[in-house]
Amino acid sequence: MKKFLAYKEALETYIQNVMSERSGAIYEPVKYIMTLGGKRMRPALTLGTAEAFGTSSKKSMHIAAAIELFHNFTLLHDDIMDEASLRRGQETVHIKWNRDQAILSGDIMFALSYEVISSKPSAQSTEILRLFTKTAQEVCIGQQMDMDFEKRNSVKAEEYIEMIRLKTSVLLGAATAMGALVANLDEEKVKAMYSYGEQMGLAFQIQDDLLDTFSEHAEMGKIRGGDILQNKKTLLYIYALEAATDEQRKTILDHYEVKGGDEEKLADIRGIFRETAALDRVREVQEHYLGEAKKHLQSVGMSQEWEQEFLSMLSFQTERIS
Amino acid sequence: MKKFLAYKEALETYIQNVMSERSGAIYEPVKYIMTLGGKRMRPALTLGTAEAFGTSSKKSMHIAAAIELFHNFTLLHDDIMDEASLRRGQETVHIKWNRDQAILSGDIMFALSYEVISSKPSAQSTEILRLFTKTAQEVCIGQQMDMDFEKRNSVKAEEYIEMIRLKTSVLLGAATAMGALVANLDEEKVKAMYSYGEQMGLAFQIQDDLLDTFSEHAEMGKIRGGDILQNKKTLLYIYALEAATDEQRKTILDHYEVKGGDEEKLADIRGIFRETAALDRVREVQEHYLGEAKKHLQSVGMSQEWEQEFLSMLSFQTERIS
Repeated sequence: MKKFLAYKEALETYIQNVMSERSGAIYEPVKYIMTLGGKRMRPALTLGTAEAFGTSSKKSMHIAAAIELFHNFTLLHDDIMDEASLRRGQETVHIKWNRDQAILSGDIMFALSYEVISSKPSAQSTEILRLFTKTAQEVCIGQQMDMDFEKRNSVKAEEYIEMIRLKTSVLLGAATAMGALVANLDEEKVKAMYSYGEQMGLAFQIQDDLLDTFSEHAEMGKIRGGDILQNKKTLLYIYALEAATDEQRKTILDHYEVKGGDEEKLADIRGIFRETAALDRVREVQEHYLGEAKKHLQSVGMSQEWEQEFLSMLSFQTERIS
Repeated sequence: MKKFLAYKEALETYIQNVMSERSGAIYEPVKYIMTLGGKRMRPALTLGTAEAFGTSSKKSMHIAAAIELFHNFTLLHDDIMDEASLRRGQETVHIKWNRDQAILSGDIMFALSYEVISSKPSAQSTEILRLFTKTAQEVCIGQQMDMDFEKRNSVKAEEYIEMIRLKTSVLLGAATAMGALVANLDEEKVKAMYSYGEQMGLAFQIQDDLLDTFSEHAEMGKIRGGDILQNKKTLLYIYALEAATDEQRKTILDHYEVKGGDEEKLADIRGIFRETAALDRVREVQEHYLGEAKKHLQSVGMSQEWEQEFLSMLSFQTERIS
């Protein structure tokens, strides 16, 4: 991950420069959320892909920054919809300011991401913009599915996967593919790099779900077991219900009758996720997506040094604890 | 206005086609707001400007539609922030659905406007997109100023004008300028057409303010005197305070102590707006902007037939009663 991590400083400087050009109340929440930190995985994928194919990271920095801005815009609006009070351990924008400010600063942030991604016209600009706009719409549709699932009684595993693919993975796929576009790779290779990012994105989101439910670390300002307390129909939940005994099924459904809950709810549900082997099955699914990502990566044929780097990004997905 | 009005059918068909390609819950509010009607003044300006300079309206239809989509996206989010329950006589999206749906459908609508404006690449695409993105940010900043003014004790006339310029006028300017860009006019003429739209936009918003305060028609689902009831610091209010006697000043400030109010508040404030000649002064300012718009228009030199059409759009601003 050394190469990927090495981009962080230049990226932060680039984003700071973009932000320092703007003043006024509307940009305060934008500056705030952009300084809360984060893994900056998406921009690293853009920069790394371009560089792996011989294109200086300077040529894709604006795209990398735009993707990170867009990603943070979605967080800003999602936090309103999810009524989340914390983001990376700090107050969310709609709490620190108010709802209207979060809506409006989010809107200008979306426009700003278009400004930044369009700031260096090139032969690939049209294709990059097309992908950006398509991806933005898919992310919105993913968020819609997530909201719709909350109101439904049951969700199928395939539906859940499609939701996280749209809400999370396509942006990782697009970030990677844009690096490939800047490096002027042929269509097939761009597609393979997209699939690498997309399949990794599925494993990434599954890891988030696993950490939410099983992590002992209450870090990053997230509530441990938040998905269980909010009765989220995650893959763990879906698989557990499929394999549950009548008694286990009753325990799950009783607990999921009401939102919130206590340590007993968490302990019961975690226990059933293990006993029904839902946890094992979810880990298998995660491994499957990482395997797919690896296959797509290896079909492209980058230098061994870079391939190693992209493989380490895959291992990172199951190793990370936050 | 005949030529401008003649575009409406083709535009509606174009928008309907765009929308009919999409399905799912997220697009329902988008389809809803796009069928509520409206003057479609912005797209008419784009189409008319392009055609006035010999470019078929077919070549600018996607831009015209994108601008109308963007405009309606801003209405969708503004209605949440303004807590408006009616839009064109119908329930607003956040009332008919809910807040989260209005946020999310607005977001995808913004992305959709980028898809539509990018759907026909041409030599002018980069410049058109740059203007679109710049304008989108300005509109957000205008909305921010509008929100900030609510919390302030006093607002200067210049500040109010700058707010409506950003919130409303720049999009009219951009709509007009994009028509000029499609027609490949030189920079100076593009700027002049922008100024025509922008200055007309100021007169347009002032007319909206006048109608809100003085119109006898309670149509379009707006509340008569809404600005007064909401204690909005419009140009009428600013000028009235400037010219008020001590007694009139006390009456205004007493009434504006609390939000809402009754027929007495409306009658008192309307009376003072007339007595202090604030109404006359606002009309003069409106005439000034229409005069500026006319000057810019005539500097461009289009055919007499078309110039007449663009002049009639100016007269329409003071004649319209809704």
